[in-house]
Amino acid sequence: MPDTSPDTSSDPVPAPQDLSRKMPGQLLARGVCRHLLSHDFVTVEELTPTPGLRVDVMALGPKGEVWIIECKSSRADYQSDHKWQGYLEWCDRFFWAVDADFPTELLPDETGLIIADAYDAEILRMAPEDKLPGARRKVMLQKFARHAALRWHAARDPDLNLAAW
Amino acid sequence: MPDTSPDTSSDPVPAPQDLSRKMPGQLLARGVCRHLLSHDFVTVEELTPTPGLRVDVMALGPKGEVWIIECKSSRADYQSDHKWQGYLEWCDRFFWAVDADFPTELLPDETGLIIADAYDAEILRMAPEDKLPGARRKVMLQKFARHAALRWHAARDPDLNLAAW
Repeated sequence: MPDTSPDTSSDPVPAPQDLSRKMPGQLLARGVCRHLLSHDFVTVEELTPTPGLRVDVMALGPKGEVWIIECKSSRADYQSDHKWQGYLEWCDRFFWAVDADFPTELLPDETGLIIADAYDAEILRMAPEDKLPGARRKVMLQKFARHAALRWHAARDPDLNLAAW
Repeated sequence: MPDTSPDTSSDPVPAPQDLSRKMPGQLLARGVCRHLLSHDFVTVEELTPTPGLRVDVMALGPKGEVWIIECKSSRADYQSDHKWQGYLEWCDRFFWAVDADFPTELLPDETGLIIADAYDAEILRMAPEDKLPGARRKVMLQKFARHAALRWHAARDPDLNLAAW
């Protein structure tokens, strides 16, 4: 029988996401980004504040607050991260995001804690604030804006070749 | 004959864009955004700097430069715009983008001029610079970052309900 369903191949409404393609940490990041938006924080993923460091989630608050959230899917994932203290100087507040089964006693007390899954998250412990100096905040805001705009450009103009960026 | 092609319904690579869905001004904006990226300017479309004003393209340069580009598809489109002078106070440089057939003698000399189509553009006349005060530049950078991040969030998480944003 011929397929008589309407041709939606050029429809701009995307298909539901196939979450099986995502890594466990990316699923946590998805829930984190959703939750932070409910606090009026916008987010990007996998931003590079400086060469050699890539953060899982960077969030920008309504007053310009800069938060970094590292997503850890397991004890091994956490214990193999030897760079996390390097993130502290690039944000006002630093959080871990883990799932409900993660042994949270491993995590340092002086960091924030978010429990997440692929659909939502909750802030269990607010991170202490260590405010960015003004010049670095400006740099981070500019990096955030460029990162978000480049990816949004690639999404709205998929024929664009962004390989050089 | 059954369709034996692979199932790509959940493939993240989007179909080529259907440009027939876009308005003439949006086609110009597409070419403008592509061209500005070659100057290392990132862009968003339809940003609202203040209630009642919506710019066609806002561009952010590598040194934090803020440019606004209004896209006009015809003489009538230009002549019906009674708001454009209100854009000047929200950017360092202001440009018109028009197609090759537009009667450019209508446009004020003291504005920039970009000739565009849906695929590319070229800056024919650089706009004069009138630098934003620092506080307003900071506001515009924050607005740009939030606009880009919200739209990129909606693109990467299409199940998200952004209606409230």
